[in-house]
Amino acid sequence: MKKYIGKQSVRFGNPPTVLEAAAIVGPKEGEGPLRDFYDVVSPDVLFGMDSWEKAESEMVRQSAELAAKKAGLHMEDIRYMLAGDLLSHNSGTNFGMRTFGRPFFGLYGACSAMGEGMGLGAMLLDGGYAEYVSVSASSHFCGAEKTFRFPLELGTQRPPTASWTVTGCGTAVLAAQGKGPYITSATTGAIVDMGITDANNMGAAMAPAAADVLINHFKDLNIGPDYYDMVITGDLGFIGRDLLLVLMDEAGYDLHKNLDDCGLLIYDRVTQDVHAGGSGCGCSAAVFASRLLAMLRKKEINRLLFVPTGALHSVASVQQGETMPAIAHAVAIENK
Amino acid sequence: MKKYIGKQSVRFGNPPTVLEAAAIVGPKEGEGPLRDFYDVVSPDVLFGMDSWEKAESEMVRQSAELAAKKAGLHMEDIRYMLAGDLLSHNSGTNFGMRTFGRPFFGLYGACSAMGEGMGLGAMLLDGGYAEYVSVSASSHFCGAEKTFRFPLELGTQRPPTASWTVTGCGTAVLAAQGKGPYITSATTGAIVDMGITDANNMGAAMAPAAADVLINHFKDLNIGPDYYDMVITGDLGFIGRDLLLVLMDEAGYDLHKNLDDCGLLIYDRVTQDVHAGGSGCGCSAAVFASRLLAMLRKKEINRLLFVPTGALHSVASVQQGETMPAIAHAVAIENK
Repeated sequence: MKKYIGKQSVRFGNPPTVLEAAAIVGPKEGEGPLRDFYDVVSPDVLFGMDSWEKAESEMVRQSAELAAKKAGLHMEDIRYMLAGDLLSHNSGTNFGMRTFGRPFFGLYGACSAMGEGMGLGAMLLDGGYAEYVSVSASSHFCGAEKTFRFPLELGTQRPPTASWTVTGCGTAVLAAQGKGPYITSATTGAIVDMGITDANNMGAAMAPAAADVLINHFKDLNIGPDYYDMVITGDLGFIGRDLLLVLMDEAGYDLHKNLDDCGLLIYDRVTQDVHAGGSGCGCSAAVFASRLLAMLRKKEINRLLFVPTGALHSVASVQQGETMPAIAHAVAIENK
Repeated sequence: MKKYIGKQSVRFGNPPTVLEAAAIVGPKEGEGPLRDFYDVVSPDVLFGMDSWEKAESEMVRQSAELAAKKAGLHMEDIRYMLAGDLLSHNSGTNFGMRTFGRPFFGLYGACSAMGEGMGLGAMLLDGGYAEYVSVSASSHFCGAEKTFRFPLELGTQRPPTASWTVTGCGTAVLAAQGKGPYITSATTGAIVDMGITDANNMGAAMAPAAADVLINHFKDLNIGPDYYDMVITGDLGFIGRDLLLVLMDEAGYDLHKNLDDCGLLIYDRVTQDVHAGGSGCGCSAAVFASRLLAMLRKKEINRLLFVPTGALHSVASVQQGETMPAIAHAVAIENK
């Protein structure tokens, strides 16, 4: 049976349920506006480990384990684990997941990983390939700075366009059957590269990818932005969000009333100096697994379009003067 | 409808077809035993570009484009592109795929990427989410050495257990309908870490992961190794292959007659000095897209179990003394 619609979307015949979720974050995130919604706030940015990379893996492990436990499941009930992160060769994820012995799909979508995983995971459930899957995405400020930018010890000044990589991991357990909220549709993004070369301005690189997937989502499903109570991007930050509004205005879609960004929710702009906003795979994942799922459950919102955004550059590509490709994936989650 | 069986396998109700494939390799691979089976052998390891990373991306781009063309499809017919590579942050893949504008799932499974992609791709087709998908995996010797080991300019001596990363990209175009060969089942691997710390002995790290997925495949489908005309791992090389035979013997499965390894087929051990054998995401992908698909089409074999293998370490994990997790995915491809 054909389940795809339009250019790049899928509408689920048996919409999978977001059964449970867990969000584990670092101390800075724990001081932010969403502090009351996380499952665990670690007082220690190393999570008891002796390196940032191991800290991220420990965060991934704890988050995946906790999400399954909250869902009342044993790890053996999870048919597939899908996950990705920002470290070179997905090492936060691979080392975090290695003890579980579950069938594993490693993803790389940079900070779009949570959207990639939730879209794929929902297809695996709706398609009859699993009863339960878990989807995780993580990032660690220190590991990301070390990987992509400068040694932290240098204290390099960050430009105002730079974002702050979230130290956090969010895991969602999705189920083929359940009481909702339901994943009703998904639009898989294409890579968009508008020629941005400034790796300290990821919002500008990602905004066109977000616009592309949003426009195709609305066209494919024949709906407008007002269908959703909230459309939330992953980590565009202030600059990327403003650019996205301009791009969407130009395309004839008014998102001024209901567009938000996980990177803007996770830190307080006044008291926490994060420049353009939060970013990282863990940003959208942790915000979804805490505040957004809570909003859906409390019916503060009933229709959410979750759009994690990723910049697909690498250290080598930036050093070689390459432009920054980006991608975004849209996942619709609804009550009823 | 439930399509999963046993612990970690899927049997396809509507087995997808391997419609076409394309293999593009570098000059060293073009001198190897499979030289007559590749679509393109580049005389230039840079593929006309000015960096190894850009060379890999160009190889990915050409391979994906050629596979679609050979299948008689336009790129717009490809519903999803799934792909992965070995460079940090999948940059070979991300930059290679950025011009196509197709919905894209980036994968990271190290050298198991082709198995991960073909398994997922087959689920997307069988599940009704696409008519056509393409799956690519690539690696580049120079890029991989630069990323994981030493600057090539140092001329560092390689130990006998080391493998030679294949410069190549293989793309398979899979279709929901077709005349076969068919993807009949898939077993998604779990991460296995047996404590190997020598990053120059990836065969030893990966053999237990291959054994694990093979044993679960045979159990889940209630078949033995003799069901297949050929069981072929991705890049275990001589050492890993011997270890796998021992592990399978111990588990009561005799693979002595029909086990082979893509890393052993791709280079001539006598005339091409590659030590333990070929490796890299491009190894299993290019061998599948050339020799293996030809064998299936000519009915030299009718039942193939394709088992790409990946070592999930990173540079940082090795430097921090971590052990090497590994993973393997099994995809059954059959005529009739």
